[in-house]
Amino acid sequence: MKTDRYSSLEKIIKSNMFSSIFILVDENSHRFCLDVFIKKTKISDYNEIKIISGEENKNINTCIEIWDKLNYFKADRNSLLINLGGGVLTDIGGFAASTYLRGIRFVNVPTTLLGMVDASHGGKTGVDFKSLKNQIGVFSEPLEVVLDSDYLKTLSKEEFINGYAEVVKHSLLTNKLELSFDSLSKLDINKDVDFIIENYSEIKNEIVSSDKYESNKRKILNFGHTIGHAIESYSHISDSFKPLRHGESIVIGILTELYISHKMLGFSLHDLKTIKKHLLNYFIKIKFNGEDLDKIYDLLIYDKKNDGNRVNFVLLKKIGEPIIDQEIDKDLFIDSFTFYEK
Amino acid sequence: MKTDRYSSLEKIIKSNMFSSIFILVDENSHRFCLDVFIKKTKISDYNEIKIISGEENKNINTCIEIWDKLNYFKADRNSLLINLGGGVLTDIGGFAASTYLRGIRFVNVPTTLLGMVDASHGGKTGVDFKSLKNQIGVFSEPLEVVLDSDYLKTLSKEEFINGYAEVVKHSLLTNKLELSFDSLSKLDINKDVDFIIENYSEIKNEIVSSDKYESNKRKILNFGHTIGHAIESYSHISDSFKPLRHGESIVIGILTELYISHKMLGFSLHDLKTIKKHLLNYFIKIKFNGEDLDKIYDLLIYDKKNDGNRVNFVLLKKIGEPIIDQEIDKDLFIDSFTFYEK
Repeated sequence: MKTDRYSSLEKIIKSNMFSSIFILVDENSHRFCLDVFIKKTKISDYNEIKIISGEENKNINTCIEIWDKLNYFKADRNSLLINLGGGVLTDIGGFAASTYLRGIRFVNVPTTLLGMVDASHGGKTGVDFKSLKNQIGVFSEPLEVVLDSDYLKTLSKEEFINGYAEVVKHSLLTNKLELSFDSLSKLDINKDVDFIIENYSEIKNEIVSSDKYESNKRKILNFGHTIGHAIESYSHISDSFKPLRHGESIVIGILTELYISHKMLGFSLHDLKTIKKHLLNYFIKIKFNGEDLDKIYDLLIYDKKNDGNRVNFVLLKKIGEPIIDQEIDKDLFIDSFTFYEK
Repeated sequence: MKTDRYSSLEKIIKSNMFSSIFILVDENSHRFCLDVFIKKTKISDYNEIKIISGEENKNINTCIEIWDKLNYFKADRNSLLINLGGGVLTDIGGFAASTYLRGIRFVNVPTTLLGMVDASHGGKTGVDFKSLKNQIGVFSEPLEVVLDSDYLKTLSKEEFINGYAEVVKHSLLTNKLELSFDSLSKLDINKDVDFIIENYSEIKNEIVSSDKYESNKRKILNFGHTIGHAIESYSHISDSFKPLRHGESIVIGILTELYISHKMLGFSLHDLKTIKKHLLNYFIKIKFNGEDLDKIYDLLIYDKKNDGNRVNFVLLKKIGEPIIDQEIDKDLFIDSFTFYEK
C-alpha cells in the first residue's frame, strides 16, 4: 500500500495542469525530507520556498515572505504549492496558497505524526495573531494529502510523540469499536504507525466531510482543545513558563476536560484514570500555580470557538459520545487541574 | 423603492443573530456617511473601526489594523462587520472579515458609484501587494449589499464619475437591449442614478452568480481591465506619472481593448468612435510615452488573470458579445494607444 501513496500526486503533476510548482519547506524538512520527497515523486522542475520552523513564526510576516517568493517567481493562478513539513508549515502554507491571487491549489505532505493524523486534514488554514492561535485564516481544502511514515524516522522522540495526543483524541470521539481508545491502547505506536496514521486521520476526515465550516458536527473535534489551546497560548506569552508543544498542551486539555465530563456528564472515573495513566506514559506532567490558572481561564474567553461571552466546551458522556456546547464554571475548571496534577 | 433598502439589514440586526457589530469607515465615510447610516438603520450598539482612505493604503498593514481592532474589541465568530465606504474599503473590509477567525459575516454599504455598480458585488475581496492590485485575497460573498444613492451626494465630481467606467463596461457586456450602451448613453447620469445603480450592478450579479470562482463565464468582467489594471498599477509606481483613479485607468483599458477588438474580431469602428467620444466627455485623456508603454506591457504578464506566460484578453466581437482567452501581440498593444491618444 505504501508504494501507492504518491501515485495520485505523480499523476496530477504529469498531467501538466500546473504552470509551475513550488515546494514550501522549513530548515528541518529541507534537511531531512526534501531529497526523499523529490526522489519519490521524481519532480524535477520546482522552486523551493524556505521558512523558519516553529509556532513562534506562524504569523502574518512569514506568510508575507511566502507571498513575496510566489510573486518573485511569478506564480500564477495555475501554480501549485506543495507544503512539506509539520502542522505549522501546512497551516501557514495552506493559508498563503488560499489567499494568493484569491487561491491557488496546494498539496499537503505532512512530515510529523501531528500533521499526518490531524493538522494537514480538514481544510483549516491560518496563522497566529497577537499570541492567539489560528486567529487569522480561512477554510480551504488541500487538493491532496500524501501520508508517508518514512518522514517520521528522522523525528526526535518528543516531536514524534507530539502527535499522539490527537490520535488519543480521535480514539475518544469515534464510535468504531476497532479504533476506540481500548483498541488503540493495545497497539505499538512504533510498529503500528502506518495503521495509526491511516485510520486515525480517517476519523477526522469523516467528521470534517460531514461539516466543512464547523457549524455543528465538526465542533466535537474541539474536544481537549478549549483548555488545551489556552494553555498553549499562555505557555508562549508567559515568562515563568517554557513554551509547550501542541501535543503537550492537548494532553492536559483532554485530561482536564475529561474530569469536567466526569463531574458534569458522569463520564466513567475508571476510564478517566486509565486514559490519564496511558497518556502520562508518554507525556510529562506540567505544574501550574494559581496565577497561571487565572490567566489561562482569562484566555479561554478569547478563544475563537466561543459564542459571545460564553465558553463552550465539548464534553464526553462516555467514550465515543461527545456532547457539544457545554458551559462550565471557573471552580470546576480549577478542580480539573487539581485532578490532573494529582 | 428607496425606503426599502435598509429593511433586510434592519431585520437581521434586530434578530440578534450577531454578538457584536463593527462599522468600518475611512475618514471620508466617517465624516459624510456614518451619521446618515446610523440614522437610517437605527443601529445603537456598535464599535467603529477607522482606516485611512486610498488605494495606497489597500495593503496587508491596513488589514492587520482591522484584525487588531476586531481582536481588541473581542469580536467573535458571531460578530458582524459592516463596510461603509468605497471600493477600496469594501475590498479590504471583506478580506479582513473573511480571514478573521476563518471568516465572520460582513455587509457592504458602498458609498461611491464605483462601489455601488461594481466593487461591493461579486465576492472578490483583497488587498494589493508589492504594487500589484488585488494580489492577496479570497472569494467571499457579503451577507448583504445595501444600495443607497444618498451617499453619492457628498462626492466630488471626479470621485462620482470614477464609477461610470464600470457602468459603461457593463453596458458593453450585456445583451439586454434596454440596458445596452445605446440606451445608457441616452440617460442622465445624475437624474437617472437610481436606475443606473440598480440595473447596472445587476448585470454584474447575474454574470457572477453563474460562475462564483471565475472559471470561465465570469472572465468577461475582465474586459477593459487587463490593460486597465496594468495602467493603474504603473501609475502608482512610476515617478513620471500621477496616480490614476480606477475609473480613469479602466476607460483607457476599455478604449484600447475595443481598438484591439476592432482589429482582431471586427468590432464596429463606428461603435468604437461613438464610445470613445462618450467616455471622453467624462474623462480626460492621458498621455503615454514609449517607455511608459513598455513598462505597462511588462506589467501585463504579472496580471493574475493570465495562464502561464500568456496574456489573455477579453475582446468584443460586437456590443453584448464578449470573447474570452484572446492573445494579442505587442505591436497591436502599442497601436491601440495611438488610437486612444489620437
